[in-house]
Amino acid sequence: MKLLEERIAKDGRVIGSDILKVDGFLNHQIDVVLFQQMAEEWKRLFKDAGVNKILTIEASGIGLAVVAAEAFHCPLVFAKKSRTRNVITEEFYSARVFSFTHGNEYSALVAKPFLGPEDVVLIIDDFLANGAALEGLISIVEQAGAKVAGCGIAIEKAFQPGGEMIRRKGYRIESLARIASMSEEGITFC
Amino acid sequence: MKLLEERIAKDGRVIGSDILKVDGFLNHQIDVVLFQQMAEEWKRLFKDAGVNKILTIEASGIGLAVVAAEAFHCPLVFAKKSRTRNVITEEFYSARVFSFTHGNEYSALVAKPFLGPEDVVLIIDDFLANGAALEGLISIVEQAGAKVAGCGIAIEKAFQPGGEMIRRKGYRIESLARIASMSEEGITFC
Repeated sequence: MKLLEERIAKDGRVIGSDILKVDGFLNHQIDVVLFQQMAEEWKRLFKDAGVNKILTIEASGIGLAVVAAEAFHCPLVFAKKSRTRNVITEEFYSARVFSFTHGNEYSALVAKPFLGPEDVVLIIDDFLANGAALEGLISIVEQAGAKVAGCGIAIEKAFQPGGEMIRRKGYRIESLARIASMSEEGITFC
Repeated sequence: MKLLEERIAKDGRVIGSDILKVDGFLNHQIDVVLFQQMAEEWKRLFKDAGVNKILTIEASGIGLAVVAAEAFHCPLVFAKKSRTRNVITEEFYSARVFSFTHGNEYSALVAKPFLGPEDVVLIIDDFLANGAALEGLISIVEQAGAKVAGCGIAIEKAFQPGGEMIRRKGYRIESLARIASMSEEGITFC
């Protein structure tokens, strides 16, 4: 999506070889007009997928997921993160996720009443890099007996392994900007 | 707001004397149509306040704030929570907040480029009880030299002291549902 790539090139900031700061429009300050345009693009891409629920994970996925839910005219659920090791599994679907950003593990939790076999789920997230969070969300959808329609990602770091790994398992991922390489000198898109 | 009160009465669940679970439509699963109606009500109430920025705090405020930002045609910023005691104050406006829910303290952080003297800020949050988070957000707005247009709250527990304390300081709070009392037998609105 040209518009998002241009915005990343203009307002994104690369730190070292691995960190892309997009806090001016994506995950601290939010440009809702850009989000609406991104949601319309996901809607175009997944219009025939029968999506009736959006799933994301707190916190920075929530904004994108809300605007996507408006575009798809359906509710959304955001998975909660818990540091607690022992999760009450009668109440929640859960997946352990290793955060490469923070170097620790957490549980992603979704209360059972909010996801079930009748659901066709579009998973939304802001970043895809190692794919750990996305795998956790896919696992939760499948624990619920629901169907994964696909994954709508804002920014994929295509030089990291998550996207390829999950596509190889047969899941559809639509990333609106795919970064081939980046450094403090600049960003190259796929 | 009648619509929200009816939804709370229908789908909310009181646990003990203090906890109101609204995770079916407000802070885990989200009904975006309801959110749009709530945002329209805030827009009606604050239409002459000159709002040009929405501020909230992660995680459950983000959904409401995004829909409010759409209604007010302005960007939003969500404060981040940090457990770290020493916050780099050159980069962030910050406030210490005691969480009565979790019994611990955190720092609310907003990066300085995203709030300044030119901003007229509507603060949005899902709950108002003891007012600790709201006081932190008000402090951040004032550290930035910005103006607080007011506070738009989804659910105020009016039997707890936060709302009265902050109104007494002269801030305008518009809570869409104000709970006078609640127990497992039922909820009474103001």
